[in-house]
Amino acid sequence: MMSIQRVSTVTKEKSCPFCEGHEILTPPEIDSIRLNGSKSDEDGWRVRAVPNKYPAFGQDGDLIEESFYGLKAADGHHEVIIHTPEHSTGLGELSVEQIDLILSLYRKRYLAMSDDPNIKSTLVIVNHGREAGASLEHSHSQLFAMPMIPTEIKLEYDSFDGHIKENGDCVFCDLITHEQTAKIRVVAENERFIAFCPYASRVPFETWILPKDHLGAFELSNDETIMSCSEILQSVLEKLKVKLNDPPFNYWIHTRPAGQGDFHWHIEILPKLSVAAGFEMGTGIMINVVKPEDAADYLRTK
Amino acid sequence: MMSIQRVSTVTKEKSCPFCEGHEILTPPEIDSIRLNGSKSDEDGWRVRAVPNKYPAFGQDGDLIEESFYGLKAADGHHEVIIHTPEHSTGLGELSVEQIDLILSLYRKRYLAMSDDPNIKSTLVIVNHGREAGASLEHSHSQLFAMPMIPTEIKLEYDSFDGHIKENGDCVFCDLITHEQTAKIRVVAENERFIAFCPYASRVPFETWILPKDHLGAFELSNDETIMSCSEILQSVLEKLKVKLNDPPFNYWIHTRPAGQGDFHWHIEILPKLSVAAGFEMGTGIMINVVKPEDAADYLRTK
Repeated sequence: MMSIQRVSTVTKEKSCPFCEGHEILTPPEIDSIRLNGSKSDEDGWRVRAVPNKYPAFGQDGDLIEESFYGLKAADGHHEVIIHTPEHSTGLGELSVEQIDLILSLYRKRYLAMSDDPNIKSTLVIVNHGREAGASLEHSHSQLFAMPMIPTEIKLEYDSFDGHIKENGDCVFCDLITHEQTAKIRVVAENERFIAFCPYASRVPFETWILPKDHLGAFELSNDETIMSCSEILQSVLEKLKVKLNDPPFNYWIHTRPAGQGDFHWHIEILPKLSVAAGFEMGTGIMINVVKPEDAADYLRTK
Repeated sequence: MMSIQRVSTVTKEKSCPFCEGHEILTPPEIDSIRLNGSKSDEDGWRVRAVPNKYPAFGQDGDLIEESFYGLKAADGHHEVIIHTPEHSTGLGELSVEQIDLILSLYRKRYLAMSDDPNIKSTLVIVNHGREAGASLEHSHSQLFAMPMIPTEIKLEYDSFDGHIKENGDCVFCDLITHEQTAKIRVVAENERFIAFCPYASRVPFETWILPKDHLGAFELSNDETIMSCSEILQSVLEKLKVKLNDPPFNYWIHTRPAGQGDFHWHIEILPKLSVAAGFEMGTGIMINVVKPEDAADYLRTK
């Protein structure tokens, strides 16, 4: 039994394109953070960005064109950001310093995308665990740079914009002030960032991380902001891993879409402990059986 | 080994509240179709509607009320419609006659809901299989009667309404005419109904069933329409079971919301063969790797 398990583990790592030393298994590197002067597509990297081998954007699709339907080529970019050279180290086990490198590479890739005038929206997402859609075990993010503003991002932006027009202030700033006063949904906080389970959370243990200052674009964050965010993100990811037994989860960054003057960027983390079933899909309404106040209390306490 | 398996199967049925003879395990019956003059809450039923023991609507919730956030009681109804007295017979194995009884009971329950002036939208959904959210194995539907029009239903209705205002005709009627001509996405068809995989399907093997006549409300269907729909629905559900090895799936009926003058009702069937991951949840855009033309071809051919 032992030897079978060991062989199986080694095989997985051997064929893993994201492991250090396997750089030849990915398309040529786009960017990386390397601490020891090593060269592109060699080992010695700490975080690494490569093109997605099966891109959702940037390829000619082969949809059948019919004049009756609208059709738009999915021009854009689809990259993979490998979180660590280590095969088996999950996001909840990484150090603050390593998370800081990951967010720093996110920032570089977001900035690179903002140079492309065809890109209207850029999104970094994580699928952690098979049930959350991860196809490769080795921890990584995906960056999607899209020729349009997607529905969910548009809806959120329109709500933000509508709130400003109606109330004269930022809905996310208002949320932060309210949650700091209410306290019951706060999970973690430091000088620059707050993490809380949003009121009427969509899923059990949903957690948002926001800069306390009104900052529109993630990619314009300075080093101190990135480091401060890394502290909170590391703290939340470790809590999820330890307290919920390494659950599958997704997270994504919502930043100011291209061409918009203002926003308040944030990270949304959604553990996948339940299934979106017929009701949720047919209505767009989420049924959540864990109160955010209980979730926050469970995550907050030592 | 054999005896353990048998015991396990019997136990499951023994504790199943939806099996014939276990009527005492559910809240008192709301309605049923009985062919032999048997009485309410006795055996002898063919399909049976009971209140959901853990209702999503109709109960006082215990959300914490804060003036900063909007809050609305989930007044309404949440019912279960049991498809068959048989524990192990799935939707894909039921006869056309049994499906006809199920749709007939749906119709009765929809009509009952439309008598309640507080109900703005009624939705019947099916969760088939664990991955699609089924918590009990015994085949059943759920009916949700809600005090508002949910997001997805509102979006679809607004698209329908916008198309009429812009083009003067029904977008679903246009779709049917186009799909009948294009043929490549049609899965099944009879005199009154058509089933096709929609262009730009959200998930692999997504299939819609629509009446060819412009009918706004499912619940106003006459017996011939219900029987004709049952034929197509049975055919599609059997194809899914046989050709895709009994996949988990959801379906729901979208009918005219309360107070709206017009619509074109239909059934949307979504197999759950893939996971909605970070990209899909963060954007609202679905990535689908199976072309609807290929899906329809696979389902259509004998």
